[in-house]
Amino acid sequence: MEKDRILPLQDAEALSLRILKKAGFSLAHAEAITRSVVAAQRDECHSHGLYRLIGCVETAMKGGVDTHAEPEVIDQAPGIVRIDAHRGNSLLSFERGKSQLKEKAERNGIAALAINNCFHFSALWPEVEALAEMGLVGLAMNPTHAFVAPAGGNRPLLGTNPIAFSWPRPGRHPYTFDFATSVVARGEIELHRRAGDSIPENWALDDNGHATTDPAAALGGAMLAFGGHKGSALSTMIELLAGPLIGDVLSHETQPANDAGTGKPYHGEIILALSPATFLGERADAHLAHAEVLFERILGQGARLPSQRRYEARERSLANGVTIPASLYAELQKLT
Amino acid sequence: MEKDRILPLQDAEALSLRILKKAGFSLAHAEAITRSVVAAQRDECHSHGLYRLIGCVETAMKGGVDTHAEPEVIDQAPGIVRIDAHRGNSLLSFERGKSQLKEKAERNGIAALAINNCFHFSALWPEVEALAEMGLVGLAMNPTHAFVAPAGGNRPLLGTNPIAFSWPRPGRHPYTFDFATSVVARGEIELHRRAGDSIPENWALDDNGHATTDPAAALGGAMLAFGGHKGSALSTMIELLAGPLIGDVLSHETQPANDAGTGKPYHGEIILALSPATFLGERADAHLAHAEVLFERILGQGARLPSQRRYEARERSLANGVTIPASLYAELQKLT
Repeated sequence: MEKDRILPLQDAEALSLRILKKAGFSLAHAEAITRSVVAAQRDECHSHGLYRLIGCVETAMKGGVDTHAEPEVIDQAPGIVRIDAHRGNSLLSFERGKSQLKEKAERNGIAALAINNCFHFSALWPEVEALAEMGLVGLAMNPTHAFVAPAGGNRPLLGTNPIAFSWPRPGRHPYTFDFATSVVARGEIELHRRAGDSIPENWALDDNGHATTDPAAALGGAMLAFGGHKGSALSTMIELLAGPLIGDVLSHETQPANDAGTGKPYHGEIILALSPATFLGERADAHLAHAEVLFERILGQGARLPSQRRYEARERSLANGVTIPASLYAELQKLT
Repeated sequence: MEKDRILPLQDAEALSLRILKKAGFSLAHAEAITRSVVAAQRDECHSHGLYRLIGCVETAMKGGVDTHAEPEVIDQAPGIVRIDAHRGNSLLSFERGKSQLKEKAERNGIAALAINNCFHFSALWPEVEALAEMGLVGLAMNPTHAFVAPAGGNRPLLGTNPIAFSWPRPGRHPYTFDFATSVVARGEIELHRRAGDSIPENWALDDNGHATTDPAAALGGAMLAFGGHKGSALSTMIELLAGPLIGDVLSHETQPANDAGTGKPYHGEIILALSPATFLGERADAHLAHAEVLFERILGQGARLPSQRRYEARERSLANGVTIPASLYAELQKLT
């Protein structure tokens, strides 16, 4: 059985920075990426943790991300910050735009941050949580690559299009969710393929548009949206808001970076911020306190809040260090 | 077999106005309600069509809606219009607020209309479609009554919390969806009960928290959210955005109007408007045209767009008149 490595948080950060700098990333990009992947590893969100550094380095090698791109911040309108990532990673763009997003949200009540032309591989929850930590409500979305068939269709068109939401809870971790609008993440199907397991029938279609339990056929066919036509509609909304609305591409127009250098991994991301203080004025504290009733009643009937396991993992990691599977640790060492 | 009545659009409007005025609604409220229910009937969206007048009249009789309430429009912030419906129907509030919402969205890029303290019974698509007809992207949400258990729970807490979205398509009907975040609408379970049919196992739980196929047990138990924990999270987001964020109540704090006069049917609604022209400036037309590629590719693989049947019905109704089931027509006649 595989043994885990336990690293202090700062050692995990140092490892990530070393890998990214060696792969050619500027310090600013390396730091922004490190904050995201170490936060995910800390929260035992392995799919978006240090493991992602491997893909990040590979994409840099294939020319799929500009490792030194300087995000260009554009004051598009009183309620819109626009950032041209210039083919750099999305995470630095978010960091460069978030204070202006906060100002606009607090002044107007609601504002949007539109990131264009970025390479995006990260979980969205660190970004919406950062907004919640500033007292804002955050809602983020982005297209990905065309992996998902629209409901009633049979060919890949929509991305796995994640949506993330975070709500500030005074004195507690925010209420946060972050999910793909496909039934499962693509990586989940990949894991089944590697393990030689079949997949449930409602996850994907094969190349002929028929339901399949074969993960390889699923990866070569089309994934399905969660919740049938409702999830498919939501995914279409994400394509529109994080695509044409912000002047960027649709999922079917992107491809992962490839060896030939013809991949087009760049797309957009939209992040909305809403300010309870501006919506409510002096009544804000009372209504934020009132929202707690909802969470108490969810927990009170034995249900969990979406990020509860992640926050529990965070407490463990902060106390004991960050857990990294030994094989991943070995693979990461090779990149240093 | 039941025969349908076909009425010219203006006769359907006149019928609705007559019923609402007799029930005591002010002309302004009667007109706003009529526009919504006749639009739904025209689109053969029977669940939110003229049929709803029966409940509307009943609620007025039970004192569950102020038939003469004047919506109070408050300029809350540069990006927020707030409206106190003063226990009147939501539809007049939307009409009174929409031009200011448009101004704010066009100036800032994004804006919100928060309606408080309203009686709400209508479909959301007429409102987001009205925004799309003004060239805006619309997104609307509201809580309802506590009918739905959170994922992992077993007791009603969340509303059926609908979400509606509309995207402007130059020269075409907008791309619009409007769905409850429960697996099905409550009325669907009611229809199964009346017909003596069982319901699928994933729709609801009985009073003991067990999956049930008995519609009566489902109505006395808890409905389920669509798409498992993802739909449940989305429904929770709707509770928060259309509740505490706008200083209004949660679904479990509302009840339908009742004979004792102790029902609390009032809650909030939030409507976001985003302006492509402000997000994109001169590039807006090109990117709106580009969004059409997505719709073409959805249709191109044999899938349908969410409101397609409704728009087809609209064409029929505009050409031939509005279809009303004979029994409903007879029932409505009794209210005139």
